[in-house]
Amino acid sequence: MTDATDDDRLARGQARLARITGRSGQEVMAALDGIAPDFARYIFEFGYGDIYSRPGLDLRTRMLATVAGLVALGHAERELEVHIGSALNCGATREEVVETIMQMALYAGFPAALDALFVAKRVFAARGNDAPAPVSE
Amino acid sequence: MTDATDDDRLARGQARLARITGRSGQEVMAALDGIAPDFARYIFEFGYGDIYSRPGLDLRTRMLATVAGLVALGHAERELEVHIGSALNCGATREEVVETIMQMALYAGFPAALDALFVAKRVFAARGNDAPAPVSE
Amino acid sequence: MTDATDDDRLARGQARLARITGRSGQEVMAALDGIAPDFARYIFEFGYGDIYSRPGLDLRTRMLATVAGLVALGHAERELEVHIGSALNCGATREEVVETIMQMALYAGFPAALDALFVAKRVFAARGNDAPAPVSE
Amino acid sequence: MTDATDDDRLARGQARLARITGRSGQEVMAALDGIAPDFARYIFEFGYGDIYSRPGLDLRTRMLATVAGLVALGHAERELEVHIGSALNCGATREEVVETIMQMALYAGFPAALDALFVAKRVFAARGNDAPAPVSE
Amino acid sequence: MTDATDDDRLARGQARLARITGRSGQEVMAALDGIAPDFARYIFEFGYGDIYSRPGLDLRTRMLATVAGLVALGHAERELEVHIGSALNCGATREEVVETIMQMALYAGFPAALDALFVAKRVFAARGNDAPAPVSE
Amino acid sequence: MTDATDDDRLARGQARLARITGRSGQEVMAALDGIAPDFARYIFEFGYGDIYSRPGLDLRTRMLATVAGLVALGHAERELEVHIGSALNCGATREEVVETIMQMALYAGFPAALDALFVAKRVFAARGNDAPAPVSE
Repeated sequence: MTDATDDDRLARGQARLARITGRSGQEVMAALDGIAPDFARYIFEFGYGDIYSRPGLDLRTRMLATVAGLVALGHAERELEVHIGSALNCGATREEVVETIMQMALYAGFPAALDALFVAKRVFAARGNDAPAPVSE
Repeated sequence: MTDATDDDRLARGQARLARITGRSGQEVMAALDGIAPDFARYIFEFGYGDIYSRPGLDLRTRMLATVAGLVALGHAERELEVHIGSALNCGATREEVVETIMQMALYAGFPAALDALFVAKRVFAARGNDAPAPVSE
Repeated sequence: MTDATDDDRLARGQARLARITGRSGQEVMAALDGIAPDFARYIFEFGYGDIYSRPGLDLRTRMLATVAGLVALGHAERELEVHIGSALNCGATREEVVETIMQMALYAGFPAALDALFVAKRVFAARGNDAPAPVSE
Repeated sequence: MTDATDDDRLARGQARLARITGRSGQEVMAALDGIAPDFARYIFEFGYGDIYSRPGLDLRTRMLATVAGLVALGHAERELEVHIGSALNCGATREEVVETIMQMALYAGFPAALDALFVAKRVFAARGNDAPAPVSE
Repeated sequence: MTDATDDDRLARGQARLARITGRSGQEVMAALDGIAPDFARYIFEFGYGDIYSRPGLDLRTRMLATVAGLVALGHAERELEVHIGSALNCGATREEVVETIMQMALYAGFPAALDALFVAKRVFAARGNDAPAPVSE
Repeated sequence: MTDATDDDRLARGQARLARITGRSGQEVMAALDGIAPDFARYIFEFGYGDIYSRPGLDLRTRMLATVAGLVALGHAERELEVHIGSALNCGATREEVVETIMQMALYAGFPAALDALFVAKRVFAARGNDAPAPVSE
């Protein structure tokens, strides 16, 4: 539908990942190097270059929806830790993250929500009192 | 922590449910009557009277987070249908609902997202071209 | 550890299945005939001949635990319908079945519990007012 | 439906939690303090004050059903560890806990059951040879 | 990493989807038209143009792995029906499909496997006695 | 259907487990000793003596299907580690294991696939450069 090349998507995705997660994506590439480098590329191109680059939903809401989905999955602790941080980076408050997680107790049960609150506690503690400035879109 | 009575929570929850879902809650009470009437009460009191009555996160974002969580669960089709409607009632646009669902493909896979898009399609079709006015909080 | 033959396990399992589910198992064999007849055999031999023939936990509690597990899975509606019936056959009351399901709202969320209550309602309605005599072990 | 206040439910829930888990609930409050104190309150009020205070199903069976549900979820290891202990506190034998877990292999697969058996092993070992007296209801 | 354009990926993906599923993909586009046309595009581009176009694993094994994964998910019945057909299209025998499903009883439980066997039965019946010639890669 | 005794199945299963996993099964028996020795027996008899001893699907494909199913479950990390090794033991290449895992991103989401790739990385690293000779069936 477009003549964007894969290189365009890759560059767009890497920029988007950096903006959302506050990381460079180098650590994902390094972790997957030697085993599945293309998977890192798909995360950049499809995950961030396609999906997270879409208009139609503001980034703050996107990240809170992601937090909700990861809590509901129940098993995605590492990813949840990254994206609680992403939600804060994108303008969500700590209170909004906590509310999103608590609400999932209704849909995915108390253990999933309680485990996620403990992950949030770790993320908040690691950031200390410095509330990062939210990104502009 | 408060001296709110269960009756207060029940009334608050029923009002909140009506505002969010656009339903009276009578159909839930009727469906559970004769088998588990207390479960209807818990939905009102705890679900809507406690959780959905909390400040700290706007209703539109709450409902999009709920949609995300229900997509990730994978098996909650009936509930998803109700709350796609709730999201629209609370000020989310159809586009925002669709974006939320599509994004879950990243976390819960394409089948969960695709099934949810078909549920959204049914909800949108049932509402026709009448975009309901969003509720005020 | 024993010199029980597969034929022994099969016979024991079929008897156990009949006692628990109130069905002969013929309908499972018929449904799987021509596609996976050995799978019916494993259900009889391993499911009922091995696991459900174990001492150490009474059948009524076993079946309520099964109901709880199936509610938590979220997607096993057909199996849940069979084993709500099994729980009643094994001496659980309708109230106990309902309590077991409601309690799962805490662990697997309200949608899983609510869907299961509707399954229970169908099972109870199909049985009418005739409370079957519980099996003796 | 009642004029019980939230304070009544809180007190009832805290007493119930202590009786079931053998813990005071202070460690949950402490863990959630500064992040989501209301979530601790919901666990007490709704989880233990409402659901676990219901008549209609004996506590021993309730806790074995909870163990079954948590095994089926697959990801709730911390909660499973607490409630294997709760099941023992409420009069279930170690053998009954093991039977409940093993039976879940039929419904949630061998890995979920095997992981849960290892959790049970840790709980049993921590209790040594002292079989605690079961609580009376 | 390449200068393939999105149009290249789209064309490659549509061809790949047709080869694997024996469908044109038009019905997916039609179903998503008016609600989420880009999601159909992602299925073609990322799902079939990227992932299913990779070398390194033969198509028959890919499709049996997909069947296994969908059985384990438990809730993806519609997708499972499509890809049991895809597995047959890609050279797997009916027996191999059945073996793959039965084996999942060990990992995801008997209900997930049993439900999947019934889906397979429907797919096989719809194809009658005509065993389609497998695709070449 | 046969007059194989449980002892036959046990011996067959232990041999099959050794061939597939490259372990003796003694460590499973030891881990379950004193808590659930019969569960080790079921793993041998039913898991390996019945299911994994079936003809109709080659071992390499069986193990890649198992890897796919375990990735989709999301919570079975320990088992996944064992069976990534089993897949290699049964003739799958490292590349095929990686392709199988990556493909599951489509069905179970990126976090499940990414976590599984890290497990694979550990398994590959522990094996070093020694590619074990695949077993013959």
